[in-house]
Amino acid sequence: MKLKLLTIIGALMLVACQQNKKETEVKPENQGGFPFVLPEEKPNRQMSAAMERIYTDYAAPQPQNNELFSQFKYTEMKGFDYNNYDGTITRRDPSKVLLHNGKYYIWYTYRNTPTPPMGAAKSNDTIPSSDWDLADIWYATSTDGFNWEEQGVAIKRPEKPTVGWRSVTTTDILEWAGKFYLYYQGFMEASGKRGDDCPVAVSYADFPEGPWTPYNKIVIPNGAEGEWDQYSIHDPYPLVHDGKVYIYYKSDFGERPDLVRMQGLAIADNPLGPFEKHPLNPLITSGHETSLFPFKEGVAALVYKDGPEHNTIQYAKDWVNFEIASITELMPYAAAPYVPDAFTNTTDGRGITWGTAHFINATGNWGKFCSKLVRFDCDLSRDVHDPEMKEHRVKHKPDVYFRQGLSKEQKERIQKENESLTGIE
Amino acid sequence: MKLKLLTIIGALMLVACQQNKKETEVKPENQGGFPFVLPEEKPNRQMSAAMERIYTDYAAPQPQNNELFSQFKYTEMKGFDYNNYDGTITRRDPSKVLLHNGKYYIWYTYRNTPTPPMGAAKSNDTIPSSDWDLADIWYATSTDGFNWEEQGVAIKRPEKPTVGWRSVTTTDILEWAGKFYLYYQGFMEASGKRGDDCPVAVSYADFPEGPWTPYNKIVIPNGAEGEWDQYSIHDPYPLVHDGKVYIYYKSDFGERPDLVRMQGLAIADNPLGPFEKHPLNPLITSGHETSLFPFKEGVAALVYKDGPEHNTIQYAKDWVNFEIASITELMPYAAAPYVPDAFTNTTDGRGITWGTAHFINATGNWGKFCSKLVRFDCDLSRDVHDPEMKEHRVKHKPDVYFRQGLSKEQKERIQKENESLTGIE
Repeated sequence: MKLKLLTIIGALMLVACQQNKKETEVKPENQGGFPFVLPEEKPNRQMSAAMERIYTDYAAPQPQNNELFSQFKYTEMKGFDYNNYDGTITRRDPSKVLLHNGKYYIWYTYRNTPTPPMGAAKSNDTIPSSDWDLADIWYATSTDGFNWEEQGVAIKRPEKPTVGWRSVTTTDILEWAGKFYLYYQGFMEASGKRGDDCPVAVSYADFPEGPWTPYNKIVIPNGAEGEWDQYSIHDPYPLVHDGKVYIYYKSDFGERPDLVRMQGLAIADNPLGPFEKHPLNPLITSGHETSLFPFKEGVAALVYKDGPEHNTIQYAKDWVNFEIASITELMPYAAAPYVPDAFTNTTDGRGITWGTAHFINATGNWGKFCSKLVRFDCDLSRDVHDPEMKEHRVKHKPDVYFRQGLSKEQKERIQKENESLTGIE
Repeated sequence: MKLKLLTIIGALMLVACQQNKKETEVKPENQGGFPFVLPEEKPNRQMSAAMERIYTDYAAPQPQNNELFSQFKYTEMKGFDYNNYDGTITRRDPSKVLLHNGKYYIWYTYRNTPTPPMGAAKSNDTIPSSDWDLADIWYATSTDGFNWEEQGVAIKRPEKPTVGWRSVTTTDILEWAGKFYLYYQGFMEASGKRGDDCPVAVSYADFPEGPWTPYNKIVIPNGAEGEWDQYSIHDPYPLVHDGKVYIYYKSDFGERPDLVRMQGLAIADNPLGPFEKHPLNPLITSGHETSLFPFKEGVAALVYKDGPEHNTIQYAKDWVNFEIASITELMPYAAAPYVPDAFTNTTDGRGITWGTAHFINATGNWGKFCSKLVRFDCDLSRDVHDPEMKEHRVKHKPDVYFRQGLSKEQKERIQKENESLTGIE
């Protein structure tokens, strides 16, 4: 009797298993149409490659439920004078926003020169070659992130031949063991002589207001001859991870017209180095400047402007191997967010909601080239849920499209192609 | 002697093999920095995930060398009157461009109603609910693609209760065995009553000028209850592949606020059907309208506006399983390209360089809602090489960003967050 029961149970289990197996083996043509309500979890059915992907490659099948998807909104930053945008004053490449004693701090590249940039050939001791030539690092503070008070110079370029004597630019901030460190590009020749060549230098201070003590040595050197970062280490961007200083940076490489911009990582136990470059560099293949923030156990990056994966937000759980987390648009350039947990050695990064960025050539007048700072807002935070930031698209008016018109050369090409098709001249 | 020689050769080969093996086994920390000139082919070294990807996931590691990457340029289409954009005349959802006897043809949704759209509740026999309610299908011709002559109606909506009696919209053209077929959405109620519900109808003619004979039957029916396409079959987009008619289409599904738009495929041996839906539908998970073209042995799609993979160009070698071929921006909406090999049963698709699209709510005035046609140009062609179309980014002026400003609700949220951080009200 007992044996018989066991046999029956066994048989039933076998049938159940076989049915289970059958369920996963349903042929596509017999599985019925895809369900009307998009399943939140991957359904047990055969699907197209693209359909598989929305369940495997993104945090959620729809962007509005993806914490690493956002639109970006833009607001003027008040409190800065640009000399009527005549090209003699520029502010660009801001640092991350630091919150200290109830005040926000940003540092940025500040140029105030007798003329606008004139190119490398016409540049001299007072005439800048590029928008970031003959610059110093200035800073400003704010209590609301919209209205700013410029505080003046933080780091002046040093005397020749100290690193950065020609220009100090594109800084970013680290807070470490109660001290503050500004990393920046230190130019030893006018940008544009060969390319945009520089290593990274650093200064430190006990307070965000300074005074800043220059280390006066290269802290992240260029790569060896023939290596991707042999000429430039740009946009040093420090975060604290794994008890260490992680500095992501960009390098320009390749030969014209195929210049390439990619991003790598250098790691040190101590803010003054030595920094060791990651052996798998470059880690991010696209984008222009570095913009990252801790997210969950990993790090997220804003990737814009250049390369095959521009207009994406990427994520690396291991801080090294980045995957596309979302595709978006109208992203901020040189984005430098307020990252509350940038220096907390977090393993539970909360994300970002705002920061500053820049518009290069703010008026579009190439003879009066200057750049300006701008505030951006977004929802890439696990603690904020702003449905307006999760709309799938930017709505542009037609004039935005029409401004992207055909050039004379393109019109001529099109006319020729058209004539060969229609026979009408 | 012979044996000894063979032994030596064997030993040498063994050493060679081991050296080869060693080369691929170099540890990352011993492989030196990544080379200064980006290799065109995947180099034999250990790389980060993102770096691997540019060699495996895209046709070329840089966008300018990727035939399926392009920017988009926009030009006004001359020859259309919109009644001063008062909302009573709309033209939208154009068909692919057909070249026939030296002339370009497009068909499109044309609404000419006594009032602008008033919503479903206020709609009646003459007042439209939506921009595409109470519409007919009109057509226009051109010899250069910029200047158009409107020719008038192609397909009038039929008498009740024939499919499409309420509105015929969003058409696309097929040329097959010397005849022409227009597929279109056939509405049997004002759009917005429940959603935007319709099946697909078809008319045929011996010439692009017509006269068009309505088939007067549903040719692509809605799915069964509970299936993704139970309510709508939108944007039927015919191509010829594998000797058959391939119609890609979109369906709206899901429940508010999580409405989803995806695209599927229906295949028939004959333009009048029966059409069989592909068992792996949906095939494209993002985008809004259907815009595809043969490319090499496969098919490429413009994917814009909605979903996790908006702002991409995708490619399916097997016409079913789509992968991201490139990420771009400012894409045309309802893009309907000139596809020279749309109906040639090609296995060597050459790509596209232009087409027409639409701007919905062309003036931004919701009380006078109407849409207009626009021409777009691009270089997604294997036969054209236009470096301006391969620039990595759209350059917008600051006002384009500032127009994407914070809403009142967002400003209030930000102020509260800020107060909690700075302690300053």
